[in-house]
Amino acid sequence: MSIVIKGATVVSTYGQRQMDVRIVDEKIAAVGVDIATPADTIVDARGCYLLPGFIDAHTHMELNNGPGTASTADNFTTGTIAAVAKGTTAVIDMATPDRGHSLQECLATWNNLAAGKSSSDYSYHMSLIEWNSQLAAEIPKMAAQGITSFKMYMAYDNLRTTDAEIYAAMCEIKKVHGMLGIHCENGDLVNALQAQYLANGLTAPKYHALTRPNQLEAEAINRYLTIAALADLPVNIVHLSTRESLAVVRAARARGQKVYVETCPQYLLLDDHYYELPNFEGAKYVCSPPLRSQQDEQALWQALEQGEINTISTDHCDFNFHEQKFIGKDDFTKIPGGMPGVETRPELIYTAGVTTGKISVEQFVGLLSENIARQFGMYPQKGIIQVGSDADLVIWDPQQTGVISAQTQLQNVDYSAFEGFKTKGAARAVYLRGQQVAAQGQLLVGQQGKFIARHGSDYHLK
Amino acid sequence: MSIVIKGATVVSTYGQRQMDVRIVDEKIAAVGVDIATPADTIVDARGCYLLPGFIDAHTHMELNNGPGTASTADNFTTGTIAAVAKGTTAVIDMATPDRGHSLQECLATWNNLAAGKSSSDYSYHMSLIEWNSQLAAEIPKMAAQGITSFKMYMAYDNLRTTDAEIYAAMCEIKKVHGMLGIHCENGDLVNALQAQYLANGLTAPKYHALTRPNQLEAEAINRYLTIAALADLPVNIVHLSTRESLAVVRAARARGQKVYVETCPQYLLLDDHYYELPNFEGAKYVCSPPLRSQQDEQALWQALEQGEINTISTDHCDFNFHEQKFIGKDDFTKIPGGMPGVETRPELIYTAGVTTGKISVEQFVGLLSENIARQFGMYPQKGIIQVGSDADLVIWDPQQTGVISAQTQLQNVDYSAFEGFKTKGAARAVYLRGQQVAAQGQLLVGQQGKFIARHGSDYHLK
Amino acid sequence: MSIVIKGATVVSTYGQRQMDVRIVDEKIAAVGVDIATPADTIVDARGCYLLPGFIDAHTHMELNNGPGTASTADNFTTGTIAAVAKGTTAVIDMATPDRGHSLQECLATWNNLAAGKSSSDYSYHMSLIEWNSQLAAEIPKMAAQGITSFKMYMAYDNLRTTDAEIYAAMCEIKKVHGMLGIHCENGDLVNALQAQYLANGLTAPKYHALTRPNQLEAEAINRYLTIAALADLPVNIVHLSTRESLAVVRAARARGQKVYVETCPQYLLLDDHYYELPNFEGAKYVCSPPLRSQQDEQALWQALEQGEINTISTDHCDFNFHEQKFIGKDDFTKIPGGMPGVETRPELIYTAGVTTGKISVEQFVGLLSENIARQFGMYPQKGIIQVGSDADLVIWDPQQTGVISAQTQLQNVDYSAFEGFKTKGAARAVYLRGQQVAAQGQLLVGQQGKFIARHGSDYHLK
Amino acid sequence: MSIVIKGATVVSTYGQRQMDVRIVDEKIAAVGVDIATPADTIVDARGCYLLPGFIDAHTHMELNNGPGTASTADNFTTGTIAAVAKGTTAVIDMATPDRGHSLQECLATWNNLAAGKSSSDYSYHMSLIEWNSQLAAEIPKMAAQGITSFKMYMAYDNLRTTDAEIYAAMCEIKKVHGMLGIHCENGDLVNALQAQYLANGLTAPKYHALTRPNQLEAEAINRYLTIAALADLPVNIVHLSTRESLAVVRAARARGQKVYVETCPQYLLLDDHYYELPNFEGAKYVCSPPLRSQQDEQALWQALEQGEINTISTDHCDFNFHEQKFIGKDDFTKIPGGMPGVETRPELIYTAGVTTGKISVEQFVGLLSENIARQFGMYPQKGIIQVGSDADLVIWDPQQTGVISAQTQLQNVDYSAFEGFKTKGAARAVYLRGQQVAAQGQLLVGQQGKFIARHGSDYHLK
Ligand SMILES: [Zn+2]
Ligand SMILES: [Zn+2]
Ligand SMILES: [Zn+2]
Ligand SMILES: [Zn+2]
Ligand SMILES: [Zn+2]
Ligand SMILES: [Zn+2]
Ligand SMILES: [Zn+2]
Ligand SMILES: [Zn+2]
Repeated sequence: MSIVIKGATVVSTYGQRQMDVRIVDEKIAAVGVDIATPADTIVDARGCYLLPGFIDAHTHMELNNGPGTASTADNFTTGTIAAVAKGTTAVIDMATPDRGHSLQECLATWNNLAAGKSSSDYSYHMSLIEWNSQLAAEIPKMAAQGITSFKMYMAYDNLRTTDAEIYAAMCEIKKVHGMLGIHCENGDLVNALQAQYLANGLTAPKYHALTRPNQLEAEAINRYLTIAALADLPVNIVHLSTRESLAVVRAARARGQKVYVETCPQYLLLDDHYYELPNFEGAKYVCSPPLRSQQDEQALWQALEQGEINTISTDHCDFNFHEQKFIGKDDFTKIPGGMPGVETRPELIYTAGVTTGKISVEQFVGLLSENIARQFGMYPQKGIIQVGSDADLVIWDPQQTGVISAQTQLQNVDYSAFEGFKTKGAARAVYLRGQQVAAQGQLLVGQQGKFIARHGSDYHLK
Repeated sequence: MSIVIKGATVVSTYGQRQMDVRIVDEKIAAVGVDIATPADTIVDARGCYLLPGFIDAHTHMELNNGPGTASTADNFTTGTIAAVAKGTTAVIDMATPDRGHSLQECLATWNNLAAGKSSSDYSYHMSLIEWNSQLAAEIPKMAAQGITSFKMYMAYDNLRTTDAEIYAAMCEIKKVHGMLGIHCENGDLVNALQAQYLANGLTAPKYHALTRPNQLEAEAINRYLTIAALADLPVNIVHLSTRESLAVVRAARARGQKVYVETCPQYLLLDDHYYELPNFEGAKYVCSPPLRSQQDEQALWQALEQGEINTISTDHCDFNFHEQKFIGKDDFTKIPGGMPGVETRPELIYTAGVTTGKISVEQFVGLLSENIARQFGMYPQKGIIQVGSDADLVIWDPQQTGVISAQTQLQNVDYSAFEGFKTKGAARAVYLRGQQVAAQGQLLVGQQGKFIARHGSDYHLK
Repeated sequence: MSIVIKGATVVSTYGQRQMDVRIVDEKIAAVGVDIATPADTIVDARGCYLLPGFIDAHTHMELNNGPGTASTADNFTTGTIAAVAKGTTAVIDMATPDRGHSLQECLATWNNLAAGKSSSDYSYHMSLIEWNSQLAAEIPKMAAQGITSFKMYMAYDNLRTTDAEIYAAMCEIKKVHGMLGIHCENGDLVNALQAQYLANGLTAPKYHALTRPNQLEAEAINRYLTIAALADLPVNIVHLSTRESLAVVRAARARGQKVYVETCPQYLLLDDHYYELPNFEGAKYVCSPPLRSQQDEQALWQALEQGEINTISTDHCDFNFHEQKFIGKDDFTKIPGGMPGVETRPELIYTAGVTTGKISVEQFVGLLSENIARQFGMYPQKGIIQVGSDADLVIWDPQQTGVISAQTQLQNVDYSAFEGFKTKGAARAVYLRGQQVAAQGQLLVGQQGKFIARHGSDYHLK
Repeated sequence: MSIVIKGATVVSTYGQRQMDVRIVDEKIAAVGVDIATPADTIVDARGCYLLPGFIDAHTHMELNNGPGTASTADNFTTGTIAAVAKGTTAVIDMATPDRGHSLQECLATWNNLAAGKSSSDYSYHMSLIEWNSQLAAEIPKMAAQGITSFKMYMAYDNLRTTDAEIYAAMCEIKKVHGMLGIHCENGDLVNALQAQYLANGLTAPKYHALTRPNQLEAEAINRYLTIAALADLPVNIVHLSTRESLAVVRAARARGQKVYVETCPQYLLLDDHYYELPNFEGAKYVCSPPLRSQQDEQALWQALEQGEINTISTDHCDFNFHEQKFIGKDDFTKIPGGMPGVETRPELIYTAGVTTGKISVEQFVGLLSENIARQFGMYPQKGIIQVGSDADLVIWDPQQTGVISAQTQLQNVDYSAFEGFKTKGAARAVYLRGQQVAAQGQLLVGQQGKFIARHGSDYHLK
């Protein structure tokens, strides 16, 4: 089974070249100008970019928090259809064990959720929501099974650990060349502010943002990087959202520390005015960290331009507006947090970043694919178009236009945070390990996704 | 009862002038050039400075931690003799309640320790080692009794509170225009490092410093100032010791925050090489934060010179080397922490600061007296030589020389951290509320000290 | 025989003007606005630039290292067709004598290679791979025959000389106002690192770069410039590739030294990630100095922009990937070093430099022609469009686009290091001494090239 | 056998304190204020400093280069008498093996020279004048016998090694935590310049300096530090003499490299005008590197003041003016190089450095003793006055004055480079391991010196 894609401009962070690409079975077999065309299929892709499949390194595809609480609107089946149809051929989902249970049990649970259902390839970040010697002993076992990245929390009472526990976990993660990402907000102070606001009768969605001010993120990041410096571990900051946090990162890097930074489309495209929408619509935008000011948006774009942010993922975690977000109608702290996003990232960032000249198409590829593959131990299997790599490919048509809407989206949720956004540039065709799985934004064949066993990070910042 | 002190150079932070000062009973009655001399006593002080009595805003005069644990070598009786004999006419001691007990009980306990025994005037910072609504309710009651400053801890398991508790306390302290000081070190990470070192068999005194690295202070200060910004409260940093911490303070001040900074003689004059002394002598220097590097010393002196540090107090808290420090012979975490210092501060800072030209004599007066009186609600009763103020006075002879030694000190402890230091400049005579209480470094009359009921801080940085 | 080229914009480092140019026989006969048109041929060049023929001052057109070793894929016949077809009307090739043989013999050998075969004009840098009094005596004889530039090596055991020999050669070259260029890498340390890597079983192409780290170039340049300062000789640094080297050059210039700097397209457009390509493809990029980091690329572009780099030549020296580069399949030190490049320099630098705004078209002309002619004693015969100069001319169409590929190249080698690069701007017509020799990138007539007898450098940096 | 030295000011780099010191047998038994005086001897040292015995880390006490060549004027017997009489209680001599012979043989030879003859304690730097696997294998054996520092040369044809050999030696030295010192001058270029000068009939002593210009030292240091960075080894630069070299050191330190710097009294106190003295007297000052300009002297003093130079040793290596220096009467390259100096260093540096305020007495102690002990693995046995250390002590009288002269010196050589220099400050008494060995500059008892087995350097710059 062979395919030759002809005439597209192949892009990596190294630059762009107009070259043909031959796929044989699941792999890229040749890359070059005017390569010989005997092939089962020949695709004329002139005028398009050929990009490595996008990777979303931050999803919560399917959460079921038990009876009486909200489950996500999407699950692995629906969420990954939305992903792959628009060009995201791999996701790294957040796997979260139950308290008192082993990481191995959690891995089994997540494999149950994804195996045979996922339409994109997939892996997991394993969450460490507590710490003890049993969990420490499981870190190398996880790495041996291809789970080389971990997640911790400095906020949320049911998830967060102490500074000493973070330090201890870092010492173990370092031994397996693992990658740690932390949700950085000072949860203790969030609690204090929430209690104070509620005690004063302030219950509307907009208080979600006011009780999670910028400096609580910057403080947590400063503490996180202090601990990482003690442990001598390069670390990842997930969903960085404020200009104060960027200043903390810059200072740490100037001291010689290796820091990876992720941000998300919502922090680049939406601001905190949305919390003031009438009819409880502000609740659609309740996520943590919250949407920030326009000043923060500008600072993030500038950081992208200058290469200070390494990756853009989505923190996809969606709840229906009508049934689920309304749980917090009278208490903003009860609104289930999170937004849909896995479907819209490529078109939004290309439109707002590349077509405006803020970032180059090479940076776009790095932020959504290549850098992620490198950081999380999937490179060069994923993230690059070169001989021997998986044939995860997107034929990206820079001229195609569209409008985002809940009506037409594939995500299984009743609203879009980007309703009405006009886009330019879209995936014309998507290939997963050599098989075309999507065309013109619609799925062709699904549930072909496989687990990606990842190797350790090499800690070299790209 | 009247005294006229003639011909001295009167110093305040405003400048210096050669003027006579008349004392009537406990107060200053007149200040002027060649004032009329009919008086019970006329003192010729030509060639000397006349300085406001020094104030030590950070002492632990007397700690009895119960059977089986170390009690301080000094108590209020002995410690304040050492203080007043060398020019320190007032101390603000750290009062620490027992867990589960009221602040009012603690105030009674500390009044018991000091009343009728103290040779200097005295007040207390009330410690908040836990937080609940009863304690919140006591804050205004303390302020009404003249206790307007409070102390909290971010290290020490038996003393520290959470970030949320600090925030809650700040909100209450702000209501009474109170002053909060915090011991800033990340106690959780100190614990982790100590456990790691001990587990590796590293038990010597020098590991005390290595398990409390600079960044743990800077991190805690950054967190403290983040919380204070949320609460909009001007705050005091006690015993700041590192250059990294100064950078955090500078950044906060640049953002418009009001931050008071205290340091201590040990951080200006001693460095961490002392921990390597043979024969367990390093234990003499075990205090928290620990002695730092010579680079830190230099940074602190530079900050003093540029007015970035507001006050110098001592953190006097002494344990005998032979009987008490040896408790930690085989485990540095068991060494009782602290050093003597209430006696030697004026001579050390004058010698190392003023005679070398690093700070002016006006700055010296601000750092050891006037700034402290202002910051802690005692001004203009204390801290200034003007009509109506308490006649707490030091006739300071800039030519007098000496050598510091445990043999000759008044502090009731078996060693001096500054053994052998040569000094230039000393108190020739000390007056407490109009009465001469010391001459040539020796006590004349003792136990005349009174409690100082303080008003709220006006939060105007001098 | 006369030609008038009308309406083009004539460019030199002095600026650009829209003027007509009359050619009579081999020379430029007139330059002016609307010059009289009676001529054998009239060319309408409106919308194009008229540029002096490009000069490549660093080629290895034809190397035959004897039986059993690799000979270059190109020779003078094929290589200069590729050169002239794209606008390069003169080359200065590296002539290298055999050990123990005279420079005169080497000159004869190179004349044999080029005469009657070269399609561009040509001259040689004479290499000094050893030193003795016979060679010293040949320096003025070479100058008398028009060979006024010399080449030495600080790396390669079969080519490099000692510091003392370099100093001695400089003293002789100075006497004839000659120009010395040196390949600057510390060969002794390269050997040591190569041996160490091979001993550890590290044989892949990427170790080529790791055993020639940046500082080995910077060190050699520092040593070279130290020797040149002793000899008081202005000197040329060939193929400078690192930011550390630029710092060394800046320091020397700040001390008043005259230093010429050459770089090459590969150091501006390719980075060391290429060494990680699968299937031994990294070998295509093995050249010395090796490709450097993206940081170095940026530093070189910045230096170009600021006029710190004087010339861009190619170090064209090509070996086929399939037959020849594979000699080093199991030992990166055996991979024949070098890349094709004489053909692609103008289009690559115009595209990446001029169309992006990094350099002006005037700088482009200086870097590829005028500065080279001045530095190497060919000015104003070559390098400038003025009356009396050789009519070596390029009609440059700034709108023409293309894609670089081994399939379509004229270089006689089986790969291109720039495969797939899109270009904008190309030579529409090329004139060599008054004769049109190429059109639309294809040769019209060949083997017209003549030897260029050069005069001494005047050592005035442009 | 016990001695108490009372009332002196004890100095270390930590500061100075007036304390008594008790010696019992060879060790310091107590340090404190007014320590109990029952002792065999009580010494009243009020008004004096008590300093750790000085250490000279760069001597060539005794060289016999075989028949027909010059042997040093001093030998271990005479040279160490001169050393210890003025306060230098330990020397580290340069041990140089014969080509083709083992380090072990060299060690035996040097032990023969020193054992039972030296009046100071002693150790050796082992020179590596060639490199091969046998020598590599001897490095750990030397370290095991207490020889943890090594010397190499970048000048002198009979001593110098290649860059690759230096790199290889560094890799071995690093394994034993050894310290490497290199004589940094580009010997190849020195040869070239000497040949050129001699060929032009320029044979006088002053051409010694002109053929070893500043940049040949700076170049060699730059190359040395490049190699050290490759090998990741902290290294020592012996006898640094130029401002250009200081710039190279600063740049390397700014890149994070650990560099130790030694200079010598002659580079601080003498300048190149001395080479122009009549009657061949310039030959007295022929040493390598040569005396430099007054600008260089000033730069070195400034570097001392700012802590950029770590140690001052002497490079003591003396030849008689009349019999020996005249060997080079008609050819400056034949003048035996070196100067006497082991006797005069303490008085010269104290006079020119401390009494002028250029350096503090604490810095003086660091430069001549404490820093050397730390750098070369003798600390805290040597270099510090603390309990448990060897009682190597100097009672330094800051008021004593003198005049340096060949007439009165103890060095066994017929001239002094510092003839007529007035000094202030001198050793009143010298103790070697508890025994008084000198009084008022004269030896009391000699040949008590012992070999010092040194441990590895900890690479922590003091
Ligand atoms: Zn999160
Ligand atoms: Zn998340
Ligand atoms: Zn404290
Ligand atoms: Zn305290
Ligand atoms: Zn080269
Ligand atoms: Zn070349
Ligand atoms: Zn030397
Ligand atoms: Zn020497």
